[in-house]
Amino acid sequence: MKVGIIGATGYGGAELYRILLNHPKVENCILYSSSEANTLYTDSFPHLSEISNHVLQGIDIEEIKKNIDVLFLATPAGVSAEITPKLINSNVKIIDLSGDLRIKNRADYEKWYKREAVEQPVLDEAIYGLPELNREEIKKAKLIANPGCFPTATILGLAPIVQGNIIKESSIIVDAKSGVSGAGRGSSRATSYSEINENMKIYKVHEHQHVPEIEQALKRLNESVEAISFSTHLIPMTRGIMSTIYADLKRDITDEELHEFYKQFYKESPFVRVRPLNQYPATKEVYGSNFCDIAVKVDERTKRVTIVSVIDNLMKGAAGQAVQNFNIINGFEENTGLYLAPLFP
Amino acid sequence: MKVGIIGATGYGGAELYRILLNHPKVENCILYSSSEANTLYTDSFPHLSEISNHVLQGIDIEEIKKNIDVLFLATPAGVSAEITPKLINSNVKIIDLSGDLRIKNRADYEKWYKREAVEQPVLDEAIYGLPELNREEIKKAKLIANPGCFPTATILGLAPIVQGNIIKESSIIVDAKSGVSGAGRGSSRATSYSEINENMKIYKVHEHQHVPEIEQALKRLNESVEAISFSTHLIPMTRGIMSTIYADLKRDITDEELHEFYKQFYKESPFVRVRPLNQYPATKEVYGSNFCDIAVKVDERTKRVTIVSVIDNLMKGAAGQAVQNFNIINGFEENTGLYLAPLFP
Amino acid sequence: MKVGIIGATGYGGAELYRILLNHPKVENCILYSSSEANTLYTDSFPHLSEISNHVLQGIDIEEIKKNIDVLFLATPAGVSAEITPKLINSNVKIIDLSGDLRIKNRADYEKWYKREAVEQPVLDEAIYGLPELNREEIKKAKLIANPGCFPTATILGLAPIVQGNIIKESSIIVDAKSGVSGAGRGSSRATSYSEINENMKIYKVHEHQHVPEIEQALKRLNESVEAISFSTHLIPMTRGIMSTIYADLKRDITDEELHEFYKQFYKESPFVRVRPLNQYPATKEVYGSNFCDIAVKVDERTKRVTIVSVIDNLMKGAAGQAVQNFNIINGFEENTGLYLAPLFP
Amino acid sequence: MKVGIIGATGYGGAELYRILLNHPKVENCILYSSSEANTLYTDSFPHLSEISNHVLQGIDIEEIKKNIDVLFLATPAGVSAEITPKLINSNVKIIDLSGDLRIKNRADYEKWYKREAVEQPVLDEAIYGLPELNREEIKKAKLIANPGCFPTATILGLAPIVQGNIIKESSIIVDAKSGVSGAGRGSSRATSYSEINENMKIYKVHEHQHVPEIEQALKRLNESVEAISFSTHLIPMTRGIMSTIYADLKRDITDEELHEFYKQFYKESPFVRVRPLNQYPATKEVYGSNFCDIAVKVDERTKRVTIVSVIDNLMKGAAGQAVQNFNIINGFEENTGLYLAPLFP
Repeated sequence: MKVGIIGATGYGGAELYRILLNHPKVENCILYSSSEANTLYTDSFPHLSEISNHVLQGIDIEEIKKNIDVLFLATPAGVSAEITPKLINSNVKIIDLSGDLRIKNRADYEKWYKREAVEQPVLDEAIYGLPELNREEIKKAKLIANPGCFPTATILGLAPIVQGNIIKESSIIVDAKSGVSGAGRGSSRATSYSEINENMKIYKVHEHQHVPEIEQALKRLNESVEAISFSTHLIPMTRGIMSTIYADLKRDITDEELHEFYKQFYKESPFVRVRPLNQYPATKEVYGSNFCDIAVKVDERTKRVTIVSVIDNLMKGAAGQAVQNFNIINGFEENTGLYLAPLFP
Repeated sequence: MKVGIIGATGYGGAELYRILLNHPKVENCILYSSSEANTLYTDSFPHLSEISNHVLQGIDIEEIKKNIDVLFLATPAGVSAEITPKLINSNVKIIDLSGDLRIKNRADYEKWYKREAVEQPVLDEAIYGLPELNREEIKKAKLIANPGCFPTATILGLAPIVQGNIIKESSIIVDAKSGVSGAGRGSSRATSYSEINENMKIYKVHEHQHVPEIEQALKRLNESVEAISFSTHLIPMTRGIMSTIYADLKRDITDEELHEFYKQFYKESPFVRVRPLNQYPATKEVYGSNFCDIAVKVDERTKRVTIVSVIDNLMKGAAGQAVQNFNIINGFEENTGLYLAPLFP
Repeated sequence: MKVGIIGATGYGGAELYRILLNHPKVENCILYSSSEANTLYTDSFPHLSEISNHVLQGIDIEEIKKNIDVLFLATPAGVSAEITPKLINSNVKIIDLSGDLRIKNRADYEKWYKREAVEQPVLDEAIYGLPELNREEIKKAKLIANPGCFPTATILGLAPIVQGNIIKESSIIVDAKSGVSGAGRGSSRATSYSEINENMKIYKVHEHQHVPEIEQALKRLNESVEAISFSTHLIPMTRGIMSTIYADLKRDITDEELHEFYKQFYKESPFVRVRPLNQYPATKEVYGSNFCDIAVKVDERTKRVTIVSVIDNLMKGAAGQAVQNFNIINGFEENTGLYLAPLFP
Repeated sequence: MKVGIIGATGYGGAELYRILLNHPKVENCILYSSSEANTLYTDSFPHLSEISNHVLQGIDIEEIKKNIDVLFLATPAGVSAEITPKLINSNVKIIDLSGDLRIKNRADYEKWYKREAVEQPVLDEAIYGLPELNREEIKKAKLIANPGCFPTATILGLAPIVQGNIIKESSIIVDAKSGVSGAGRGSSRATSYSEINENMKIYKVHEHQHVPEIEQALKRLNESVEAISFSTHLIPMTRGIMSTIYADLKRDITDEELHEFYKQFYKESPFVRVRPLNQYPATKEVYGSNFCDIAVKVDERTKRVTIVSVIDNLMKGAAGQAVQNFNIINGFEENTGLYLAPLFP
């Protein structure tokens, strides 16, 4: 396969490239950048010195149509809105890592993202690329909306109990924590080292653009789900997301039953690891890998369930999941080139 | 005043000593340690080189009765149970930073702490030292149970809406995050650098010993309060606690009303800073200080309130609050020697 | 005293303000900022909420001449060059934390700083504010060039053996390491969290602008000193500088003799702590304080000496030393308002 | 190949296992542990959940002789001294990651390690496994002494100029910095998070046991080399070593000549990346990989050279280099299963 990455100079793009360099089905990977065209990729990312001697290329839609089988968009919000419509009728399959194609309802997108939505026909074509819930649709897709980092951890944590009708639909509270790399490679005071180190913040309270994405996915599983509480915290670490999820139980269920239900739910999903009962995942335990690790625990005192779900935001939360989708749409084994052990410590 | 610190070689003890060294009402501060008696304090804490030439002393109850006006216990669970009863009838006032005297109900203590409780008469004598809720009782106290770190942040965050009958009593969920210094100065694999750095964990799920302390304090404010959900996360930083609190509103209330209600509630409390609406505190903004910073926000979509409360766990969560109590029981201004600006960055 | 700070919205300015707020001789402290005039200081630094309600003021030279006794310049290179000449003939004493006034030789400044130097008469007026070497001159000064962070740690580490004629003058090698706050509060990719965390870099190899400042100071102590090797490393921490210094011994000297020589050299200097033999300082042991901690050790195998010198770059390396100079030029005790214990851990 | 790892529950062992799990020539990898025999490996290292279901085995020399082709010893000092002699006459090839077999001179070992050395015949048999200097000997070896972390970075940084007779033999100064994982997985106060975070220390001044290893290797390249100055610093990060090296030039040489000389020296070595002139490596740029990145720069002012050499201490400094040696002694391509791109950020 010949693949391309637009936005290769961001963290998501670099992580994609790291995976695709060793992917057995990828023959060639072309890196595009509007701002840094004609420079060596290793000028941006010297950690790839002597591994890659790739020169960044300018974005040329006609060239892409001719040379690329699958195009990854690892770009900020708004770029996909511009590029995707131009390629929609070509043979190029697209996996879009941005949020532009995830929200089916244009008004919702515009309310939460505060920018104009992509035109409806393009949105209709896009398949939400969360393989654990959506594998069959993805197989036939030409255009993938790759999920956001918080939604991936959160939806995978909630899917079994939401679909299984185990919790009260109005009771979902998600307390999410993220490392800083999710903010991208641009510079800002808010993400500078001296402001983040030895510090912890809450941000975008009740306003995070990932809320409608999570609610949309949950409603596909159970249309009675109501608005969720969702808050996001910035943690002094580079990679890693943890969603701690709380919900009221609708009926009595034991830890063992709940745990077994999760094990069954994900038994065909190689990247979800439902951890043994009473063992809780730490973010470092999925570091650099495509795993989503989940633990569940009933609280007898409050009749609530606590769910912990962790991912590496650049892997299962972005580039890893994109390659997982790439494998599925091309009929490869889901974990081809992607079954990387986490790096610990 | 002549003061003593038992457990001076832990982090809480060191922080107490840092404050008391500059406290204008403290004439002499004696440091006790059973394990390191007769060694220089600066052997344990060289950051105090040339500031202190104190030699650690062995614990001698009779000597303490004679020489000490106020004794701080900065010791692990169990030590106070042994020492406090021996001093209860002396003139020595005691401020106990451990959890031993906080839980009035012995069965609750024994269930959550998994060790034998202090005898009931001693427990009955102990006053819970959260000045913002309890100032009048503290003034007359001889024996103070200094609150835990998580309870301080959590109870101060919740007190106004719990007392004000604003939220549903069964709906309280607290997602708490802490830096590592709360685990103390002992060594363990779980708190070693390589295991904590670039990592985040949840721990003691549904089992944290601070749960009964929080519930006891909330029930004093509003006896209808039911069991709370409380989870604790270990964050890769040394100091700082954040409690993110969620609760269902009982009635309509605007952000402005809620914010004003908090401002009024704490208007006599110099160490609680209710932050301006839409400004959220970060833990570094109270670093090294005795402040508890709080933000409140109503979520119209879910009819819930989100409250964020941050402290420095070694200050307002331990040593700082202990000195605040020391000031109150001695009739000094509440912020004497304690009005330290946070260190930023 | 009425004092002013220009550049109050940087880290150095904020640290100055933290100290001066509690300084017993400071009656009023006015904060100036050209870029953020007329905004609340706590909008920039919310950690000072309710401690300060100061509104930043625009820079007005005439107003300063009228209202300010001592003016601190906590500004980037170039600003002092513009402001200082306008105040040089007023009654305002100036303490300049930038590098503009430190290098007496204009050609050296222009070579290393790559910008135009201040006019010679102003340079001639400026006294280099390293009190441990220069106390008498500072007492009479009206214009202080406050030393750089690396120079402070390095010169204090080297002064005794350079003046004492103990080492070969061509053999000085300084391997310096710094936390990130020295880079200031501006945002840049190079100092963003994801680039610094879990990473270590060398930078400005053989080109750091602090080289001529160090050499100038050493030559005042011993004119035979030759060019030094000086390298700087960026360490994943916010505060702290360590200079590890190597030099060839000219003659046999024991550890005990060397250590005693250092103790004597600094016996009148309250902020230099020569640590006991075989005890080495860590940067955290001076965190938030104005101390410079030094250890010395002879290596019998190589006939070299190793010296370790640590400071908090924002304190003894900037704001703390500026207040030390402020105390000296005003005839106050050198440690007035400044004898703060380090914050540990 | 059937391989075994003794000491699999340490960080070096875990990193070996991570690599060997994906190594195309390894059919089976058995993990041994005396202290945790008969427990699941994932109980120690849950990041490998569902990747490994290996049960740790007790150490049984006879079983090893029968079942194992190559045995890795990832054990603390002293263990190899006990195990290696028992296997020396078997068919098992041994790669020892500890320091026990590195020092040929028993007296040197005993002086620096402060424990009894291995018997001389075993030491004589051991080949020092630094492939870039020693590839031909390693090909024929049966017993490999895998180099230490600091020696690997330092010797590779120095080898060209030492062998090339470019520097004065008495002038070598090495200022080394390391992340904390090099201290292993045991718990100690000195490596606990609260003591390391936001802190930097120098340790083992003039006493580090890696000194004789470095000097021995350098003397093999140039017997005139004299005692080196070598200091080690603990940096608040988990992985990564940087050696900053200073030496006096014997003769004039330009940056370009020196750089070219290094390029040539390492042209057959796939894991040494001599970085382009004026580009300096950061430790994160080799994170999780087996690369050693080197930069060189002449200082015209001092007639010295500065060399910067970085590795991941658990990879090129331990497990990665061990697998590199494994490949060489078995006649595989040197980078088989090991050409992993660094993880960034």
